[in-house]
Amino acid sequence: LRYAGDETRMKADLDCYPCFMRQALNASRRVGVTEEVQREIMLATMDELRQLQSDIMPPQMAQHIHRRVRELGNHRDPYREAKQASTQAALALYPHLLAEVRAAADPLETAVRIAIAGNIIDLGIHEHYDLEATLQRVLHQPFAIDDLEPFRTALDQCSRILYLGDNAGETVFDRVLIEYLDRPVTYVVKAAPIINDATCDDALAAGLDKVAEIIDNGTDAPGTLLDQCSSGFLQRFDQAELIISKGQGNYESLSDVEAPIYFLLQAKCGVIARHLGVRETDIIFKQGISGDSERLQR
Amino acid sequence: LRYAGDETRMKADLDCYPCFMRQALNASRRVGVTEEVQREIMLATMDELRQLQSDIMPPQMAQHIHRRVRELGNHRDPYREAKQASTQAALALYPHLLAEVRAAADPLETAVRIAIAGNIIDLGIHEHYDLEATLQRVLHQPFAIDDLEPFRTALDQCSRILYLGDNAGETVFDRVLIEYLDRPVTYVVKAAPIINDATCDDALAAGLDKVAEIIDNGTDAPGTLLDQCSSGFLQRFDQAELIISKGQGNYESLSDVEAPIYFLLQAKCGVIARHLGVRETDIIFKQGISGDSERLQR
Repeated sequence: LRYAGDETRMKADLDCYPCFMRQALNASRRVGVTEEVQREIMLATMDELRQLQSDIMPPQMAQHIHRRVRELGNHRDPYREAKQASTQAALALYPHLLAEVRAAADPLETAVRIAIAGNIIDLGIHEHYDLEATLQRVLHQPFAIDDLEPFRTALDQCSRILYLGDNAGETVFDRVLIEYLDRPVTYVVKAAPIINDATCDDALAAGLDKVAEIIDNGTDAPGTLLDQCSSGFLQRFDQAELIISKGQGNYESLSDVEAPIYFLLQAKCGVIARHLGVRETDIIFKQGISGDSERLQR
Repeated sequence: LRYAGDETRMKADLDCYPCFMRQALNASRRVGVTEEVQREIMLATMDELRQLQSDIMPPQMAQHIHRRVRELGNHRDPYREAKQASTQAALALYPHLLAEVRAAADPLETAVRIAIAGNIIDLGIHEHYDLEATLQRVLHQPFAIDDLEPFRTALDQCSRILYLGDNAGETVFDRVLIEYLDRPVTYVVKAAPIINDATCDDALAAGLDKVAEIIDNGTDAPGTLLDQCSSGFLQRFDQAELIISKGQGNYESLSDVEAPIYFLLQAKCGVIARHLGVRETDIIFKQGISGDSERLQR
């Protein structure tokens, strides 16, 4: 694997400190512990923030902090019910999403927009969101970064796709895009619970097994931290002809990796918006750093 | 002074922790220190949060945290320019505000609404706000708590008013209400800079000396912490026939004090909204705990 260098790497920002404090509090409330334990969790979160290198990537910071929350809250999966509810809400929209693609003038673009709309289901960012309002917005707003055309070309040339999933519920929106792509897809989930990121159970609940092979990346990070991923996943990643990467966490952890990758996401906080040079709530379809032509020649 | 008891006292919440981390970061950026010093300030803020009693009132927490920011950032008044800009922007609206009161069917209610609209200028909560949009909203939205009628009666019976100011710029909106009240008013500011709370300089810049006597409360707390206030202020407070209290900080520090007080504010965060039993962005005109009839009899 090759990295493009430090200046393209996404680092945690001081703005991440209050954000992770808020995430730790929200997660500990979901676990249902007493306010005293919630305060212990907040103090432990401050310890983590103090001890962690300040320039690590946000998903690494999140991994450490949510591990402590799960440990101190004595709960394996604080977002379990929330993930199930998100998946059910998304499945209720699923026939409507398919109809949107069928009726579209440019069905690939619409399917891509639907997959990006699903990225609003990110409980690390917003405890509440309006799924249908987001869908209507994302179906129509201009891309702040638009690499759809190079993606069309890459898609024509590839025989198989590696799809890095993000959150439970968003999985259903991914399924709509995957069905339209009509190629063999490997859908990658997290190996263990972290925030509301999709695990294998969540992917199955969304019916992704009907349209893709499901594998996990071997980690409990809310992103793709390659130095922690399983060798099985890394082999797939290294050999991939085309990678679709969903969401902030995957972008935050792969922005500096040379690979034939396309990032589909909503910019949901100021830190990532500044890194991408866009505004919050912008939608992004961004080709990764070079790599793809060279990869295809191997 | 009498306190109504612990259950009416407003305590800091775990939600205040991430909020004060954010405030400390925003304040340190305004000071213009390096990112390294900003991080030191964040770590010092976490120390304060760890050491402070978890059940103190939010303005006490703010006082400790912003003192550390000013100390480590080596700056007496991080919000100085912002306060001047807020006052100028408010003064530009001033003739329009007076005209609103003159044209109103119920000028007292309109003047009260204008004073509440100005409470949006709170840089501890929002770094940015839309002053004119807020004014239009607050002129028309229903009060979530509406004690305007008892206030009318109290106003008729009183010869002098003690007015607890809040933020710079908001001062101009207060001036509009004070001019309409047409009674001798003592306007209370902070004795030293804290966030964007008005000091004597800010009150003078808003022209409050033309319509009121200006005094300070002896503290650098963003509210009215009676156990820290000067004896001069406390005497005024104790003898007051009618007190108008502006903003969250004053409510947070006086909610459990028995006094002939009326709280005018916008509920700008979840913690205060829960305490008041209202929703965020609601507007409040709330009579304080009993006291007033007894006080008037003294």
